[in-house]
Amino acid sequence: MSEAREFRYVGTRPIRPDGVDKVTGRANFGADMFMPGMLHAKVLRSPHAHARIKRVDLSKALQIPGVHAAVSGADFPDIASEAMAGVVDLAINVMARDKALYHGHAVAGVAATSPAIAEAALGAIEVEYELLPPVMDLDTAMADGATLVREDNYTQGLPEKPDKPSNVAGYFALSRGDLEAGFAEADVIIEREYSTPTVHQGYIEPHACVVRAGEDGQALVWCSTQGHFDVRSASAKVLGMDVSNIKVIASEIGGGFGGKTTIYLEPVAIRLSQKSGRPVKLVMNREEVFRASGPGSASKSKVKIGAKRDGTFIAIHCWHAYEAGAYQGSPMRPGLMCAFASYEIDHFLIEGFDVLVNKPKVAAYRAPGAPQSVYATECAIDEIARELGMDPIDIRLKNAVKEGSEATYGPKFRAIGLVECLEAAKQHPNYQVKLGENEGRGVAAGFWFNAGMQSSAQVHVNENGTVTIVEGSPDIGGSRASMALMCAEELGIPYENIHVVIGDTESAGFNSGTGGSRVTFATGMAVIEASRDVKRQLCARAAMTWSVDAEQVDWEDGHAVPKPGVNVEAEPLTLAQIATGAPRTGGPISGRASLTARGPGPGFSVNFTDVRVDRETGKVDVLRFTAIQDAGKAVHPDYVEGQLQGGAVQGIGWALNEEYIWDEQGTMENAGFLDYRIPVASDMPMIDTQIVEVPNPTHPYGVRGVGETPIVAPLAATANAVADATGVRITDLPLSPPRVLAAMDAAEGK
Amino acid sequence: MSEAREFRYVGTRPIRPDGVDKVTGRANFGADMFMPGMLHAKVLRSPHAHARIKRVDLSKALQIPGVHAAVSGADFPDIASEAMAGVVDLAINVMARDKALYHGHAVAGVAATSPAIAEAALGAIEVEYELLPPVMDLDTAMADGATLVREDNYTQGLPEKPDKPSNVAGYFALSRGDLEAGFAEADVIIEREYSTPTVHQGYIEPHACVVRAGEDGQALVWCSTQGHFDVRSASAKVLGMDVSNIKVIASEIGGGFGGKTTIYLEPVAIRLSQKSGRPVKLVMNREEVFRASGPGSASKSKVKIGAKRDGTFIAIHCWHAYEAGAYQGSPMRPGLMCAFASYEIDHFLIEGFDVLVNKPKVAAYRAPGAPQSVYATECAIDEIARELGMDPIDIRLKNAVKEGSEATYGPKFRAIGLVECLEAAKQHPNYQVKLGENEGRGVAAGFWFNAGMQSSAQVHVNENGTVTIVEGSPDIGGSRASMALMCAEELGIPYENIHVVIGDTESAGFNSGTGGSRVTFATGMAVIEASRDVKRQLCARAAMTWSVDAEQVDWEDGHAVPKPGVNVEAEPLTLAQIATGAPRTGGPISGRASLTARGPGPGFSVNFTDVRVDRETGKVDVLRFTAIQDAGKAVHPDYVEGQLQGGAVQGIGWALNEEYIWDEQGTMENAGFLDYRIPVASDMPMIDTQIVEVPNPTHPYGVRGVGETPIVAPLAATANAVADATGVRITDLPLSPPRVLAAMDAAEGK
Repeated sequence: MSEAREFRYVGTRPIRPDGVDKVTGRANFGADMFMPGMLHAKVLRSPHAHARIKRVDLSKALQIPGVHAAVSGADFPDIASEAMAGVVDLAINVMARDKALYHGHAVAGVAATSPAIAEAALGAIEVEYELLPPVMDLDTAMADGATLVREDNYTQGLPEKPDKPSNVAGYFALSRGDLEAGFAEADVIIEREYSTPTVHQGYIEPHACVVRAGEDGQALVWCSTQGHFDVRSASAKVLGMDVSNIKVIASEIGGGFGGKTTIYLEPVAIRLSQKSGRPVKLVMNREEVFRASGPGSASKSKVKIGAKRDGTFIAIHCWHAYEAGAYQGSPMRPGLMCAFASYEIDHFLIEGFDVLVNKPKVAAYRAPGAPQSVYATECAIDEIARELGMDPIDIRLKNAVKEGSEATYGPKFRAIGLVECLEAAKQHPNYQVKLGENEGRGVAAGFWFNAGMQSSAQVHVNENGTVTIVEGSPDIGGSRASMALMCAEELGIPYENIHVVIGDTESAGFNSGTGGSRVTFATGMAVIEASRDVKRQLCARAAMTWSVDAEQVDWEDGHAVPKPGVNVEAEPLTLAQIATGAPRTGGPISGRASLTARGPGPGFSVNFTDVRVDRETGKVDVLRFTAIQDAGKAVHPDYVEGQLQGGAVQGIGWALNEEYIWDEQGTMENAGFLDYRIPVASDMPMIDTQIVEVPNPTHPYGVRGVGETPIVAPLAATANAVADATGVRITDLPLSPPRVLAAMDAAEGK
Repeated sequence: MSEAREFRYVGTRPIRPDGVDKVTGRANFGADMFMPGMLHAKVLRSPHAHARIKRVDLSKALQIPGVHAAVSGADFPDIASEAMAGVVDLAINVMARDKALYHGHAVAGVAATSPAIAEAALGAIEVEYELLPPVMDLDTAMADGATLVREDNYTQGLPEKPDKPSNVAGYFALSRGDLEAGFAEADVIIEREYSTPTVHQGYIEPHACVVRAGEDGQALVWCSTQGHFDVRSASAKVLGMDVSNIKVIASEIGGGFGGKTTIYLEPVAIRLSQKSGRPVKLVMNREEVFRASGPGSASKSKVKIGAKRDGTFIAIHCWHAYEAGAYQGSPMRPGLMCAFASYEIDHFLIEGFDVLVNKPKVAAYRAPGAPQSVYATECAIDEIARELGMDPIDIRLKNAVKEGSEATYGPKFRAIGLVECLEAAKQHPNYQVKLGENEGRGVAAGFWFNAGMQSSAQVHVNENGTVTIVEGSPDIGGSRASMALMCAEELGIPYENIHVVIGDTESAGFNSGTGGSRVTFATGMAVIEASRDVKRQLCARAAMTWSVDAEQVDWEDGHAVPKPGVNVEAEPLTLAQIATGAPRTGGPISGRASLTARGPGPGFSVNFTDVRVDRETGKVDVLRFTAIQDAGKAVHPDYVEGQLQGGAVQGIGWALNEEYIWDEQGTMENAGFLDYRIPVASDMPMIDTQIVEVPNPTHPYGVRGVGETPIVAPLAATANAVADATGVRITDLPLSPPRVLAAMDAAEGK
């Protein structure tokens, strides 16, 4: 299906269509919508990490002048009802019913004529709690006799249903070969434990929505989201509404990284709007984002890996526990599938646990689950290489999966680019740089499946020959530009003549959300198909003009031309000429495609980094970071590079600084960007990137997703570099100055 | 192409989807948009009907605190430039350059932080005028040596270009046979002169727009319009912009009747937004609507008609002059084509003139041109019938066009319903009512071509089996409901499961405006085609599920079923079942159609009315009004009846009360709804309607447009009734109390 071809537009780097809007501040984000008569809403949140809710009394709040509506759990559908089967967790996360499950859990909401009145009204809501002991870490949660976060939770995925409830929500395992025999064959075995903390995606724009619900049961939702069709279906389920009664418009989005694939505010705002008869704006502040939106999962891993003297991996046993928050559904399963997906291995058992704790429900965070598990395996590989005295790239090259390899998670790979990335790393000038004192270098490989899912696109030809694309994937990383480039490539018209629109749920065909690294691949495929639909029509219109059959016309370089051998006197017709004549040849020209995209090409990366560690403070400075990744075909290389750079920075932050800090009562102590420190530009060197292009054979242009793989390898690459610099292996992230200092002091016997 | 069939949904009367929005006041019209940082704009208008503009000085206005931008003609593209060829009239109507052509002509605009500051700023703009004599009526304009409204106007449509400019912009004629011979054969000849005044469409919502133009050359326009694609192209032309840089969202619309098919405010608001860097709202008040938006054309007609003793029409000579306002383009041509379209006649000359005067450029008004010309011919026919002692319905039946008749305007009619309407009128109980003293009855027939033009529609299947239609025709008369009914009919799913969205210029495929009585016909055809596209896909998905060929599956009554004889064990699949499974059978399901609709079935009507005339005051009361019309197939009969009733009321207003009153300087003296009196509910009886259905053979359901024909016949029907009641024939409209009283007095020799 992929074509060996030269590209004219794809692969160039034009300015993105939404660029001016965003640099001038004109772009409208989630909180930037105003509606006549709009109220301002606030949410009352539990001050306790685990408590039974005995009573919620809204009456005093409702007496405050300016308060138009208030809601609590009782205002939402009964979770015991049959219609709510399958959405109970989502529903009670949006608004608590009988229990508050984490500090920050929504307990009530109010809508008033000003934010100040709404805030005052929160103080007038009476809630009676019965405190329960909070379960705040994996060890406590998994211990025998632990307090239960959810009294009705039974572990899923075991051969038999367990006889009593526990905090383990799920078990999953991948295996092949004979583990015992494998380890018996190994010349060297490394066995280690690792952990990663709760981290936040750190999107700059908080969750926000503006909602208008009407007397006819219709609701209009404007919000910041990665998937407005998902907001529509999730909100409908939580409220017991029909999807066709909810229209969702995706505002511009100030970052998501997986964290905006679910809902928090929208059903609350809809209910408040229904009760008040007025539009309602509901916006989280940063503290609420930290306390009540889904972070990335904390994890604990045990890795035992055995290799032959020549570096061949022979057996691995991985054990990974992931925090789910107070609701089942950590990214444990994809985490396990990614853990050792980059390598060929005969004997393995990769098993994991999805564990409940009294923390907010985790959300997806870029390649969900993979950074945690790959951090553990890529650190262990580093220790094996060190033990064997092998170059860390060479040991990976020796074991790297390639076309035909059987992935640990099942399928046989088609054409993939891991070997090419490793070879590029080895050749890279940065890999030749000599290191100084207290400096170290770390290498790691990363992997993500990439996703396909559902996309729709329409391509409308305007009367002057310009083109409008309507698609339904919120543009986070420059996808408007990529869509326009692919359409330009198909139609042979300049990029500037193409305008891309992200339609709302009522103007675009159905689209899965922007996530899974699927948009350039899948929505791109829909745009290509819809553009080809347009080309067929353009050829048919030209044929009509020339009185020949449609099959006798070709589309070449932006023109309809008679096929060779067709006996007609005809000047080539441009798209603009055909568009201008369209009213006389059958009317407007529009193409469309809807598809479930199959065969997203897996994405592999290799990262290496040089760090310097300050012996006095334990502070780690990143000197160089090189991100190499197979993009299949880079449609807009700037935005591929941006993904590589952004993923690297987020991964470095995860490795070095970021972590939620909780007190014993389960209160997060650093719920703000001053205390929860994400890397800023001045912390980082320029991230060097190199794009490898091994075409994805299932995409017409060879495109692979690129958005998630970049965050997978940096944790281990950074940790491996710190170990190299200090000679001390710290296995618990983050490698923050106190921890690094303490480890170095301990190693020196201080 | 039309099918003899039973309908299940088409022909029912469900509640319209926008009904609740509109009765609760939640619907957002042209002035109901707010944007952050928005300015309020006002337009300075010429106080002179005809003046040379020597100087416009904006500097003092710009010094007023709060004023952010001001524009005059100099801020718009040079009308002498090649790019402006063909749009000069539109451009200088939007903003005057060297001449003010009517009282109210836009001369400058300002944008300020409040409407009050903007108003104050208008007063600070200095304009120096050199007054010219205004040309205010047809006789003055057409007289030899008249002052020229446009010094460079030469009559178009004459065999040779005239050797000197004049106020006649165009000439057109239709003819057949030998006029002299025809009149020589006639047993009776009537020759009369008629006139109609300038009238306004009287839409309740004034022109309004909110605009945001940006640094990247993009502009967003929210406005009340009958055709947002037309606003896009017209604004682009006037401003020298590319259509793909303008996005137009059609707000809900509070009436248009043809008057919102052009632009006045949008380019001014865009320019002010570009200059200020802020969004701009620009709204006309009622006085501005009267003074500066396009009214219906005033006319003068001379009709000479000859008939045989048995009532057969043998020859007609019509002469019609139409006021164009200050720019060529009155509806003279369609007016001439409609003048005698209802009748067979061997010898005719129908000729007309498009005449410039110092009044606002006329705009379309429901069946543009036809009420004026048909008023004249249908009054003359009434006099012939009276002269021959024939029933006015019988004489029309004797001459009525039918299938195969050659229209005066050219083509042969296919199946049409005039005879059926006339017969229905004759049978109608209202036609049997006995009249009392001072009461009279009048009959008239009406005709409108109806239009096709371009339409596009998408039909998206939602994941739960509900359906969203995206089309691009602003909904004025209930077309959302009609579209949903046609889609329901095709797909066999309930009307309530279908949601209709009017997409903006970037989410819907191209659509011509809502006008010409084309939407239910043409956009409906697109919806039917797009629904059939969906059905094909639904059958293919079912076939995939059943492992049979797509051709082996039928769509029946909302279900996919194997065709008779296909050997497969298969339960019928509902649309909802197929939709739910769509992710696994190829992804989302969307249908689309774009077309230039051919064969809009001509629409005929017959109206008759009973009036009572007050001998003391001359006031005419309408006692009964019966509107009978061929709808082809009434998709939603309520809205067909609504069109018949609304057209009747507007036609009665035109006949009895409405007129622009000008002083000698060309100032309109009654620019408000208190002095320009449109009929209100208490003035009118219930308008009785009867829908005749002679299917349009070129539409799949037999649909004909119905929106314009209803206004054609009421002028003559009312005038004929007044003549019947008073025994006096008044040929100049309106038949206002002073005029009727004076005529009665004169007849009685007072």
